Amino acid sequence: MSSADTARKHVLCAGIAVLDQVFRVANFPRPDVKTQASEFRTVNGGNAANAAVAISRLGARASFAGPLGGPAGEDAVGDAFLALAAREGIDCSACPRVDGAPTSISAICIDSRGERAIVNFRDDRLAAARPVNAAALVADADAVMADNRFPEFAAEVCRAARARRIPVVLDADEPRRDSNDLLAIVSHVVFSAEGLRATAGSDHLGRSLIDVSKRTPAFLAVTDGRNDVLWLDGGELRQVPAFAVDVVDTLGAGDTFHGAFALMLAEGRNERDAMRVAAAAAALKCTRYGGILGAPTRAEVEAFLAARD
Amino acid sequence: MSSADTARKHVLCAGIAVLDQVFRVANFPRPDVKTQASEFRTVNGGNAANAAVAISRLGARASFAGPLGGPAGEDAVGDAFLALAAREGIDCSACPRVDGAPTSISAICIDSRGERAIVNFRDDRLAAARPVNAAALVADADAVMADNRFPEFAAEVCRAARARRIPVVLDADEPRRDSNDLLAIVSHVVFSAEGLRATAGSDHLGRSLIDVSKRTPAFLAVTDGRNDVLWLDGGELRQVPAFAVDVVDTLGAGDTFHGAFALMLAEGRNERDAMRVAAAAAALKCTRYGGILGAPTRAEVEAFLAARD
Repeated sequence: MSSADTARKHVLCAGIAVLDQVFRVANFPRPDVKTQASEFRTVNGGNAANAAVAISRLGARASFAGPLGGPAGEDAVGDAFLALAAREGIDCSACPRVDGAPTSISAICIDSRGERAIVNFRDDRLAAARPVNAAALVADADAVMADNRFPEFAAEVCRAARARRIPVVLDADEPRRDSNDLLAIVSHVVFSAEGLRATAGSDHLGRSLIDVSKRTPAFLAVTDGRNDVLWLDGGELRQVPAFAVDVVDTLGAGDTFHGAFALMLAEGRNERDAMRVAAAAAALKCTRYGGILGAPTRAEVEAFLAARD
Repeated sequence: MSSADTARKHVLCAGIAVLDQVFRVANFPRPDVKTQASEFRTVNGGNAANAAVAISRLGARASFAGPLGGPAGEDAVGDAFLALAAREGIDCSACPRVDGAPTSISAICIDSRGERAIVNFRDDRLAAARPVNAAALVADADAVMADNRFPEFAAEVCRAARARRIPVVLDADEPRRDSNDLLAIVSHVVFSAEGLRATAGSDHLGRSLIDVSKRTPAFLAVTDGRNDVLWLDGGELRQVPAFAVDVVDTLGAGDTFHGAFALMLAEGRNERDAMRVAAAAAALKCTRYGGILGAPTRAEVEAFLAARD
């Protein structure tokens, strides 16, 4: 991967934006004991919004489109999200704001082993928002990364992108059985383990991937934390090894994987190579505290991979 | 308790102010599963700040003094706290703001049984703040309610109040062994169970109260959730029965108890009566969702007690 020989690509990320309130703790809170955090920060979160940060850190152009609360000036959470996104150089100009609803917010605890516990509030009214002009949104995109938190919003963007025949990666992270429409209209699906189990109705990840392949011609893979990535290669199950690292914080690691994967496809890499880069980016992210703010630069990913070749 | 025959008293609450981000959940978050909240709201929290809300709801004058982050306009958490306190009619004009530090913030989950799980971040620099003029703060107070989160800040206020011989109630909620100074300079100590265990170094609440009584001449009691309140009456252990209610949300219940107790002392009631009113106020609070926003009015407490006499 040389950054010199690829033009700067543009990846549009569509889906959920969240403001994450992140508490660093020794142990997760338990009822009736007040847990003291050693650190607190407010960072951006949400699958698609996080993927946009990862893409921007890798040196590409990232834009984000997804429903926010509103209006501006009254929804403090959405205003804070946009200010943080602007700092990362992410174009959020096509985000619809839903008046009277709050932007999604999460409280997240990260423990001494780097594991996270998340509680999220998402106002149902956000799901009614639609892209103002999906065709315009994707007009100069080289790839799209969409999550399945707002399936109808994402579907419009994905259809417009597929009409242009660019790669469309679905992050099927949310456990839901109603994502079938999305599965059928994207070119690539990368499940979370939890998302795949819910979609396939089975606990066995490999068998579930094969089951889902009967419903969509899309490329299929599943990430599973620190375990290897499973994927289907012409009906055969294969693995992309996860890199072993000292884990400090897994928050945003999956999103980093999806963002890096979509960017590599935008740059014309094959899926196996793209997943290897994505796995490296996700592993590096896990070594750093601060949610998606720990996403690596392209130079860091290149050095990480070079050291392991 | 007739509101007609007591002049409107003023209780100063000194200690911690927190902005609480409250998530209503079916079950507490667990690692690696995203918990969806059915409701989210931002409310004021912190022991002393909550007690001020409870006092104001009971129809008295409440003021609050405690370290906030700062400066105004830059510490969004502190600004939000002050705006919410103003809505409750609480005078916060004597709160020092510590430039460069954030005001304390908590994320709190309340589950379907009304139990709470709390994570809190408190910047160490807040502990360096001192009252600008403790004597002026307490000059027209009829009682003081202080918590033990900022012992040195509280100690100055408590000493000034004791010099005026008004009741000074310490909420010894935080488990700490260094509260001995505070124990000795207040007139009343109401422990949380956790706070008493840490102070006495023993799990037995009754025995712990007797142990602590050797260190201070103050009135001593301990609250223990839905269990009866234990207190020492001239060396004898006694109980104030807790009222059985359908619990929706215990967040702020202890603070409601402390606020009501201090106010009743300010109105000249004896401790046993004051604790009965406080237990009623706390029980009513538990029947309502929304943290301290569920604290009852005086009319509600009077009706509750009248129905049980």
